[in-house]
Amino acid sequence: MIQTNASKIFNLIGAEAVLTEATDLRKYITGLSTSFGYVISDENGSTFYTDTRYLEAAVNALKGTEITVKKYESLENILKPYKQVAIPVGRTLYNDYRKLKSFGLDIVDSMPAFVSAMSVKEDYELALIERACSIADKALISLLDSIKEGMTENDVAAHLEYLMRKFGASGTSFESIVAFGENSSVPHHETGMRKLKLGDVILIDYGCKYGGYCSDCTRTYLFGDDKKHEDFKKAYAHVLQAHNLVKEQVTCGITGREADAVARDYLKKHGLDKFFTHTLGHGIGINVHESPSLSPKSSDVLLNGMVFSDEPGVYLEGEYGIRIEDSVTLDEGKVVSLTDTDRKLTVL
Amino acid sequence: MIQTNASKIFNLIGAEAVLTEATDLRKYITGLSTSFGYVISDENGSTFYTDTRYLEAAVNALKGTEITVKKYESLENILKPYKQVAIPVGRTLYNDYRKLKSFGLDIVDSMPAFVSAMSVKEDYELALIERACSIADKALISLLDSIKEGMTENDVAAHLEYLMRKFGASGTSFESIVAFGENSSVPHHETGMRKLKLGDVILIDYGCKYGGYCSDCTRTYLFGDDKKHEDFKKAYAHVLQAHNLVKEQVTCGITGREADAVARDYLKKHGLDKFFTHTLGHGIGINVHESPSLSPKSSDVLLNGMVFSDEPGVYLEGEYGIRIEDSVTLDEGKVVSLTDTDRKLTVL
Repeated sequence: MIQTNASKIFNLIGAEAVLTEATDLRKYITGLSTSFGYVISDENGSTFYTDTRYLEAAVNALKGTEITVKKYESLENILKPYKQVAIPVGRTLYNDYRKLKSFGLDIVDSMPAFVSAMSVKEDYELALIERACSIADKALISLLDSIKEGMTENDVAAHLEYLMRKFGASGTSFESIVAFGENSSVPHHETGMRKLKLGDVILIDYGCKYGGYCSDCTRTYLFGDDKKHEDFKKAYAHVLQAHNLVKEQVTCGITGREADAVARDYLKKHGLDKFFTHTLGHGIGINVHESPSLSPKSSDVLLNGMVFSDEPGVYLEGEYGIRIEDSVTLDEGKVVSLTDTDRKLTVL
Repeated sequence: MIQTNASKIFNLIGAEAVLTEATDLRKYITGLSTSFGYVISDENGSTFYTDTRYLEAAVNALKGTEITVKKYESLENILKPYKQVAIPVGRTLYNDYRKLKSFGLDIVDSMPAFVSAMSVKEDYELALIERACSIADKALISLLDSIKEGMTENDVAAHLEYLMRKFGASGTSFESIVAFGENSSVPHHETGMRKLKLGDVILIDYGCKYGGYCSDCTRTYLFGDDKKHEDFKKAYAHVLQAHNLVKEQVTCGITGREADAVARDYLKKHGLDKFFTHTLGHGIGINVHESPSLSPKSSDVLLNGMVFSDEPGVYLEGEYGIRIEDSVTLDEGKVVSLTDTDRKLTVL
């Protein structure tokens, strides 16, 4: 019997039964991307209830595992044998919680077990993230040759997304951000119809999905050097140094707060911390934002096998923004970069 | 003072205050696409609380409207003046509901007001959907010329998504379905690496977003006619006739059940109803699936200004599937198609 994450989660929680319905958590447990269904795990194993759209594919995919597949039936029937059920309380709708209580069930929170289990990747998960990251790298490298004056931000995003798809991605892991010139100073700029002109900064924050797992990467370029970018170049060097210090100094056992401070303290020494308006990073997996958090308030402890972003940035309103981001993992206490395109300042 | 959907929703509910946080509902109220924030409406107007990433853009966008923009602060402070607050209960997490109760607030459900208001489109909303639909049409027409033997489903999806982006879409409205040959018999096929060969059925179900609003359209083609498709051609003619009957017969004031029956009864006469394994349609707007529902169980009443899909389909497991879908609206009691590419059987 092939073990899955279903038994890992069940064993971590120790409740009589575990009920999992949220799309990402269900994907974690079953390994399958489905838009409907739920999994019940108890000491005898797990059952994935889904509808006719997914039934046949799920039966084939889960053959030989500890997960049985059955056709959807009402939760009330399925939960009759149990007195206690674990659900991800922080992800549960009020009406669903009330329904479970009306069945007379004691409710236990499964969320901490999911957060902790999902943040440390299994080898197969790491392989999927590595693949997503290498598709993203390949697409970016292909893209750079085709960037021309007069293209809109939308054109560039469209071409980048096309390339990721072509190289095997199932889609993007979030809405691609392509920001030209002054638009780069808005950390969450909405990609639009601004046209590229000589001397523009180009900021590209993008990611793709492969096998249900995400990549996340940001690069900042200069489109032609019109010799008006001395401040930008100095700031770029500092952001890159902050990014690199994180890779050198972050290790197993430190907190997300300590990791964030590596970049923030360095930028402070150079008077740039007030322009670093977001946190250093976030976990990456099935969700593009998950545990751990690398922020001034985070007490999350970084562990081997975690995957997270290292993304310091500075934003001078109305002028320019710079962000250099990689998806990285901790392996034997060292940071290993999973996205790996050139980081030194490139003039296109 | 420019009125927005904030006052429409507030007036429909009649609670002391309305608190709106869900991304799509917040988009409906403010007209803005943001990933964080909430709106409080009371008899004096509305305030949109968001963070520094969106503050400047929101202030500019909402100038002159009844919505004031402020920097995020804690809900507990903001809600102090009120004894009663309306929230979308069916969309509210258990923990959030409990937090509001702990502030001593009476809770009213805002969801029915949102469902009803959002299902009937304002002119500006209809214009955005029309634009999304015409971008999607234009992309499909461009795509057809480039479909060649040996391309994978992923290649075709990538190219289609590229074209939608290029023609001005901000992204897809759902994961594009491109299914070749026997894969077309799976209504929610996951687009993959199957290569196109002569005589294949091609089913493409796709949509894009423009200004935050969705399109949704499906077409089914034959890639070269190897003369082995007599059954397919007969079934195609029946699905198209069912699709057209819906457009002719559906009118203002009938229920979603009656609309569904137009297609289902016709297919039954021709022995195909057992292969029509999903519902006739769903509302389309900010969400690609919203009210009204056109299904055997739906008591939703169809009204002028609603936008929904007309998508009968038949699926013969392991052989082929056919779906012909348009996004349509009801205008003066008549169905008007918003997606409008050729529907007659086309051999590519």
